[in-house]
Amino acid sequence: MAGNEFPFMKEALSVVVIGASGDLAKKKTYPSLFSLYTSGFLSDSNIICGYARSKMTDDEFRDKMRPFLIKHGTDEQVESFLRLCTYSAGGYDDAKAMSVAAAKLETHEAQQTSSKANRVYYFAIPPNVFTDVAAIIKEVGMSTTGWTRVIVEKPFGKDSESFEQLDRSMSAIFTEDIVYRIDHYLGKEMTQNLSSLRFANTFLEPIWNRNHISSVMITFKEDFGTQGRGGYFDQYGIIRDVMQNHLIQVLTLFAMEPPTKFVGAGSEISEHVRDEKVKVLRAFDPVRLDEVVLGQYLGNEEEPGYKEDKTVPDDSVTPTYAAVVFRINNPRWDGVPFIMRAGKALNERKTEIRIQFKRPPASTFMFETDVPANELVVRVQPGEAIYMKTNVKEPGLSNDIVTTELDLSYKKRFQDTYSQLPDAYTRLILDTLRGDKSSFVRDDELRESWKVFTPLLKSIEEKKIELIPYEYGSRGPAQADELIMRVGFKYTGTYKWHD
Amino acid sequence: MAGNEFPFMKEALSVVVIGASGDLAKKKTYPSLFSLYTSGFLSDSNIICGYARSKMTDDEFRDKMRPFLIKHGTDEQVESFLRLCTYSAGGYDDAKAMSVAAAKLETHEAQQTSSKANRVYYFAIPPNVFTDVAAIIKEVGMSTTGWTRVIVEKPFGKDSESFEQLDRSMSAIFTEDIVYRIDHYLGKEMTQNLSSLRFANTFLEPIWNRNHISSVMITFKEDFGTQGRGGYFDQYGIIRDVMQNHLIQVLTLFAMEPPTKFVGAGSEISEHVRDEKVKVLRAFDPVRLDEVVLGQYLGNEEEPGYKEDKTVPDDSVTPTYAAVVFRINNPRWDGVPFIMRAGKALNERKTEIRIQFKRPPASTFMFETDVPANELVVRVQPGEAIYMKTNVKEPGLSNDIVTTELDLSYKKRFQDTYSQLPDAYTRLILDTLRGDKSSFVRDDELRESWKVFTPLLKSIEEKKIELIPYEYGSRGPAQADELIMRVGFKYTGTYKWHD
Amino acid sequence: MAGNEFPFMKEALSVVVIGASGDLAKKKTYPSLFSLYTSGFLSDSNIICGYARSKMTDDEFRDKMRPFLIKHGTDEQVESFLRLCTYSAGGYDDAKAMSVAAAKLETHEAQQTSSKANRVYYFAIPPNVFTDVAAIIKEVGMSTTGWTRVIVEKPFGKDSESFEQLDRSMSAIFTEDIVYRIDHYLGKEMTQNLSSLRFANTFLEPIWNRNHISSVMITFKEDFGTQGRGGYFDQYGIIRDVMQNHLIQVLTLFAMEPPTKFVGAGSEISEHVRDEKVKVLRAFDPVRLDEVVLGQYLGNEEEPGYKEDKTVPDDSVTPTYAAVVFRINNPRWDGVPFIMRAGKALNERKTEIRIQFKRPPASTFMFETDVPANELVVRVQPGEAIYMKTNVKEPGLSNDIVTTELDLSYKKRFQDTYSQLPDAYTRLILDTLRGDKSSFVRDDELRESWKVFTPLLKSIEEKKIELIPYEYGSRGPAQADELIMRVGFKYTGTYKWHD
Amino acid sequence: MAGNEFPFMKEALSVVVIGASGDLAKKKTYPSLFSLYTSGFLSDSNIICGYARSKMTDDEFRDKMRPFLIKHGTDEQVESFLRLCTYSAGGYDDAKAMSVAAAKLETHEAQQTSSKANRVYYFAIPPNVFTDVAAIIKEVGMSTTGWTRVIVEKPFGKDSESFEQLDRSMSAIFTEDIVYRIDHYLGKEMTQNLSSLRFANTFLEPIWNRNHISSVMITFKEDFGTQGRGGYFDQYGIIRDVMQNHLIQVLTLFAMEPPTKFVGAGSEISEHVRDEKVKVLRAFDPVRLDEVVLGQYLGNEEEPGYKEDKTVPDDSVTPTYAAVVFRINNPRWDGVPFIMRAGKALNERKTEIRIQFKRPPASTFMFETDVPANELVVRVQPGEAIYMKTNVKEPGLSNDIVTTELDLSYKKRFQDTYSQLPDAYTRLILDTLRGDKSSFVRDDELRESWKVFTPLLKSIEEKKIELIPYEYGSRGPAQADELIMRVGFKYTGTYKWHD
Repeated sequence: MAGNEFPFMKEALSVVVIGASGDLAKKKTYPSLFSLYTSGFLSDSNIICGYARSKMTDDEFRDKMRPFLIKHGTDEQVESFLRLCTYSAGGYDDAKAMSVAAAKLETHEAQQTSSKANRVYYFAIPPNVFTDVAAIIKEVGMSTTGWTRVIVEKPFGKDSESFEQLDRSMSAIFTEDIVYRIDHYLGKEMTQNLSSLRFANTFLEPIWNRNHISSVMITFKEDFGTQGRGGYFDQYGIIRDVMQNHLIQVLTLFAMEPPTKFVGAGSEISEHVRDEKVKVLRAFDPVRLDEVVLGQYLGNEEEPGYKEDKTVPDDSVTPTYAAVVFRINNPRWDGVPFIMRAGKALNERKTEIRIQFKRPPASTFMFETDVPANELVVRVQPGEAIYMKTNVKEPGLSNDIVTTELDLSYKKRFQDTYSQLPDAYTRLILDTLRGDKSSFVRDDELRESWKVFTPLLKSIEEKKIELIPYEYGSRGPAQADELIMRVGFKYTGTYKWHD
Repeated sequence: MAGNEFPFMKEALSVVVIGASGDLAKKKTYPSLFSLYTSGFLSDSNIICGYARSKMTDDEFRDKMRPFLIKHGTDEQVESFLRLCTYSAGGYDDAKAMSVAAAKLETHEAQQTSSKANRVYYFAIPPNVFTDVAAIIKEVGMSTTGWTRVIVEKPFGKDSESFEQLDRSMSAIFTEDIVYRIDHYLGKEMTQNLSSLRFANTFLEPIWNRNHISSVMITFKEDFGTQGRGGYFDQYGIIRDVMQNHLIQVLTLFAMEPPTKFVGAGSEISEHVRDEKVKVLRAFDPVRLDEVVLGQYLGNEEEPGYKEDKTVPDDSVTPTYAAVVFRINNPRWDGVPFIMRAGKALNERKTEIRIQFKRPPASTFMFETDVPANELVVRVQPGEAIYMKTNVKEPGLSNDIVTTELDLSYKKRFQDTYSQLPDAYTRLILDTLRGDKSSFVRDDELRESWKVFTPLLKSIEEKKIELIPYEYGSRGPAQADELIMRVGFKYTGTYKWHD
Repeated sequence: MAGNEFPFMKEALSVVVIGASGDLAKKKTYPSLFSLYTSGFLSDSNIICGYARSKMTDDEFRDKMRPFLIKHGTDEQVESFLRLCTYSAGGYDDAKAMSVAAAKLETHEAQQTSSKANRVYYFAIPPNVFTDVAAIIKEVGMSTTGWTRVIVEKPFGKDSESFEQLDRSMSAIFTEDIVYRIDHYLGKEMTQNLSSLRFANTFLEPIWNRNHISSVMITFKEDFGTQGRGGYFDQYGIIRDVMQNHLIQVLTLFAMEPPTKFVGAGSEISEHVRDEKVKVLRAFDPVRLDEVVLGQYLGNEEEPGYKEDKTVPDDSVTPTYAAVVFRINNPRWDGVPFIMRAGKALNERKTEIRIQFKRPPASTFMFETDVPANELVVRVQPGEAIYMKTNVKEPGLSNDIVTTELDLSYKKRFQDTYSQLPDAYTRLILDTLRGDKSSFVRDDELRESWKVFTPLLKSIEEKKIELIPYEYGSRGPAQADELIMRVGFKYTGTYKWHD
Repeated sequence: MAGNEFPFMKEALSVVVIGASGDLAKKKTYPSLFSLYTSGFLSDSNIICGYARSKMTDDEFRDKMRPFLIKHGTDEQVESFLRLCTYSAGGYDDAKAMSVAAAKLETHEAQQTSSKANRVYYFAIPPNVFTDVAAIIKEVGMSTTGWTRVIVEKPFGKDSESFEQLDRSMSAIFTEDIVYRIDHYLGKEMTQNLSSLRFANTFLEPIWNRNHISSVMITFKEDFGTQGRGGYFDQYGIIRDVMQNHLIQVLTLFAMEPPTKFVGAGSEISEHVRDEKVKVLRAFDPVRLDEVVLGQYLGNEEEPGYKEDKTVPDDSVTPTYAAVVFRINNPRWDGVPFIMRAGKALNERKTEIRIQFKRPPASTFMFETDVPANELVVRVQPGEAIYMKTNVKEPGLSNDIVTTELDLSYKKRFQDTYSQLPDAYTRLILDTLRGDKSSFVRDDELRESWKVFTPLLKSIEEKKIELIPYEYGSRGPAQADELIMRVGFKYTGTYKWHD
């Protein structure tokens, strides 16, 4: 890849971070912008303008940001990057303040050699002020010579109804083509790799279907709880917080049909992947309540339970664990259960996709033993890896079957680049600058995914589903294991991946 | 595997090595028997009787053998093993001498607790005395209480005619069920693993066919020449010496249809694999002379050429290199070229199977780049490994496709057992003791394989095919590369497997 | 099907036929409306208003229409249908005249029990007045209580540019959801059946791909020429007149991926099929000029040649015959040639899809004869039929292979309904009333299909392709046969379908 | 087919029918020989010698045979055929009598121009005299200049044990290569066609497996009972009488893997099909008693029940109906139930193979209706036909799915030849003359098939399985329907094949 060829790099560029003094901005947005700067995708001729309600001078703002950058580059790089960073204070509905900020941009843009000046607005703010900010940008902040793009962050609603409401107000202001909805799972190395893996290899697509795959399991595990900040989480719960956005993205990329193209000129290329994601979502069955297990963690000797978090209501029915089975009604997947599991305060931290294949046909007869099922595992984090559990003859004088794996651990195989894998945000901001929307969430995707989840969420709120307590640090409710075995997943005891 | 359960271990056993003073006996037969002894498959109650023309006492024979054993066990193990070894001198057609040897066996067998005494005769002798030895064994050497099995070594003829002649004489003496024809390639770890790999995994069989595989290439390379002992080789040439026996075994195991069973009670189980190997051989097309490249090496600055070997005739037309394309007329393989390459005095030493898959369909359009073909490589030696060349997104900010591999290197993955992988002969002698004939060559297999090769060999003798000179230490004739590209193999320049 | 359940039947309905005195209206629109009336889909409470420039009374108009209806029903039915038909004269840009017509509709609608009154405008007019008429309907003719739908007829442009121009003007007036673009091939029984055939049967989809299909040929043959009315045709030529609209519709339905759904509630259902048609069009390669054969017919002893038609310019380079090869870059079709052939003044009249399968693998070896390829033929007209050319053992004492067919001739199998198969227009007008847009052409479909054809058409106009003369009543240019054999189609001489 | 090219036609030929005065000889053997005569495969230079215990002159024998021939040819043909027929009386163990008969053959053979004289012995006798007759033929009846072939008729044992006994005695006399075991089902047009259908067509093999086929059902129904001659039947029962021979032959031809070749020079060609039939039999699971339903018919108002047949013991536990599920442990069929049903005194007469495919995946979702499964039906008798139950759009204005069929009815399609389809015996005797053994039953086939059936038969004799009464003329026990639905077969009510 020769980054310096991207067209946007030859034009003027202003980045405006709305909510610049908040946590997201400090922890993700600015470090990612810095990373693009050190990689040469942003240059000294660009300007990065912070905007938030607190009053600060540019230098005060820079001092605030500096600690979040220093670990990502040399002092020199940090200082030259900070020189690009300015700050403007203003309310989220204050068009005048915004026009002041915009005036600064214009002044800067006018000094550039390119006659075309592009702008990115990054919304590092809560959704309740999205519309206000959008309105004032529309009023005074749009680029008149180049493109304007707006990056927004989840949550995009809490259910179908709230999403539609938000979408209506936003789309009254911005057309869909300038809105970039970030889900940072779409920026992860393994998520981005899924399509290459599937469509740039001959040996996977022929088995990527109901004839050969027994089940697909997408697992998200965190080994910590809410850590005293459960108040926000309690409004959403694990299904909204992890499944409806992150994991459904992974699932749709996994399950979609081949898109027309991944690479090519023309803005419609970005839509091909998203078209397919929408298409597969439309084929989902409603979730059946008997294929859902929900849990909420209790404390153990060392760690508090969920409701012991002071910010969580005592009568909270918010699940911190969920196992849900999805069913996709298309010729490829009819009959294959897609199991999604997500939980906090579990025994380990990992996100992975696990494809369990059907047993080799007649193998029990041929080998007079129970031949274990193959599994293809795509480990999203930590320790990016792809491995296929493979059966071979036990080496030596034995003729027994033993399970080992064909392995591709990124840490081992890509030693040079592994430690420098960019953060998901870095990739996605770069995609925004390049105008590649394929890794952003489109409005109709959200519409369809809320259709899948909303009835389930309603049922939870109406307490139609039991909330099973599980211990902090455990594997989660035993009922979840029962559920996944019931739909066909087979645990094969002895195998252990050699990381 | 619990070796101590094999039925033969509870019965008396005598092993007779015919040609015990020869090279093969010293380098392979006795070390392998010793290895079975140290692994517990042979015991102190067994007897191993050497038989050859030279006169020697038992102790003189033991002294002769000792140097070939010491590196494979402790001194104590060597000495206790040698105590089992006796020696009888006799001509290969001397029934009286053989009856003396047999009398010794009987005496020993009579001392055992089991009323059943089994015998293995290992023919470490040239084929011209096979029939003589067989005749005297049949006359005086057969076990009367248990089974008798005869292990014979290649060559099994030089062409269809000589094979049929040999087979007629042998089969007039021994029924097929007691003859164990060794081809040591069938005892190699990766050859033995081929069936497990194919039939104990779900993800390979669906792509193991003409729809997905573009070509299969089996390569045997040696990085040394005849080393002054080319006289024997010159009578056979690379096609007989390597292809018609070793590589055709690998090819048939690769290409055969699923056998009924691999494991199970009943002597017919051994036949299932051999039935399938014969079946696939029957579907071979005659080799076309325009799909053959033959070579003979010339010397380079350091090493002499083939004809510079004193034992090789000056006008030798014996190929030391061959590339041959086979075509199999069955529904699975119709249209897929099977390329076999074997050569001496080349640039490296290795034996491997390389399956090249068709390009991912439409990938050039989807990714706007030439996506490399997947290859599954089974490395037979050295460094046993299986790896699938796999395309992924280049890690990092790029979206390019890069080829890496899903890897299973035995050295890395099976660290404990790798250094102790048994020699092929050890496995095969154990199979003989167990009565498992699946890794031995059946008469009809030889019949069919000679049918495939004999017309080609005749054409070579009639000088219908040009013999291309190539330099010692080179990759062999360039015409071979042209041939394999002509039948569809694609070299993909930049990829390098990380051993 | 229980037609009386459709929601539109419970509401008021007015149909306005613009261009009511023209050929299309008389030959297709009114007879189809009459057919809907006799089938019970239109009722005595509906009103059908003709609109055109000629001045006429209602009765004069009825007298004009009567002859076109009488063969489709009883006298009584004709008369009661004609009672629904009124007429209003007016120019195509005369808003006042249109408001007079609209006032009549309102009066009639007001007398209906339903408070909801729907309107269909059928554009039986040339495209140059589309925009004018659209504008006056938008101004004065839209239903205020129910839906308004507009049916338009091809041509939809002559190339990408003219299409975009037309589309821009129309879409400035009407949103896409109310425009129903008719291509009557989409209303034919076999075209409508294609999706059922593919997706409601298990035995076809597994072979509907590059692994099993060798080529697909879509053929349109007419056994008559321009019959003295070639002037209009000469502006378009066979490619626009037959391929770009009719045959490309058949091809995309044939080749598309499975849509999400065919049946269901919600207006988006109609879009699923059209989404897939657009998707497959996007994967088309540009047509290569060396995969095109064009022809123009000469006269024979009885019939005049194309240029002998007085209405055709003497120097016309308009093709009356074309054979074109299309290539689709997706995983299903990569490598499969799609051959399209269309011609006037040929030896017979028929439209069919012919799927030629690859030879049964290894069959030549197994049967020691050249086993003919299977072909699945979908005969669109005349004589709707589906048949699979199938090989069986020759009945009797022979073991030879003989080709016969598994047959489904509609005339034989559906004797009761066959003679009453509705005209394509009847189906499509009913679909319009039901709001099912799946059999109408969407704007982006046209955009993509013009992208495929425009470069080819430009090349023809720039005379880059030779125009081959062929005789009236012949099979067309021999070069076309050469082309299709070159891309892999195999003629198998002796077989003849038994109609 | 040019029959006059077969090598046997140029050599002398004598046919000896042992048991010439019995029912089989009269009804099948002689009419078939006559049919070969009228078709030109037998000629006036051949001799057909009847041999049986009854004393008769040649003319008396001819008078006896004449009535069985007259309907198969003209008077002239009958008389010239009868002139070839001679008769010799003798006991089945009377070597002297046989040598008298043989002397006649020799005399006749000596008069022929060919120096090579071939002989066929047709055993139209009960199995208990097989060995005796074989012994005297071996002693005095073998051709000394040409080949000798022996055709034997079922039953070949009653279980594994009795088969092995019979086989041992026969194989001590005749080598396997000269024994032709007839099962007349192998001579039926549709049975012979099965391999052409499967392997000479591209569209069936890809779906001929567990991924696409839900179940296979082979049905044999007779609409009459034992008709007062149940004594013989009672010793065998429906399983031996129909399933173990006839239907298992059909099943193995249906289910076998592709043989190496069907056509070609060399006697081994005949073995390829039989090798595959044996192979698939080896993969059968033992029948599970809970997958068997047995019945015995009761009388109805018009017809007597089974035990009312005077020749049947009152306490008979012989089944006259059986439904049995077989399971085949190979990669193609793992998981697919093979249902075999056979019964006497049922509601109709037919033999057919019915392959039920899995439902089109996701079709319920796509079409919002339960799409019926496809079925491929091969009707063996009466009315040979192949048809594929196919779903199409209901013709007309409806979009509903309706089931019809792609049809190949031999009566309609092969009108010329249909009425002359040769009897199974005619084909098989011709195959014997040609030396094509592929349609005869090999000893190891019988061995394997008895292994499948013997445990079941033992269980029946030990009364471990209930015998369900069913009424004469009914569909058989309702429990059979329950069984086949339990293993996955779906009845789809409304469809009816249009014969």
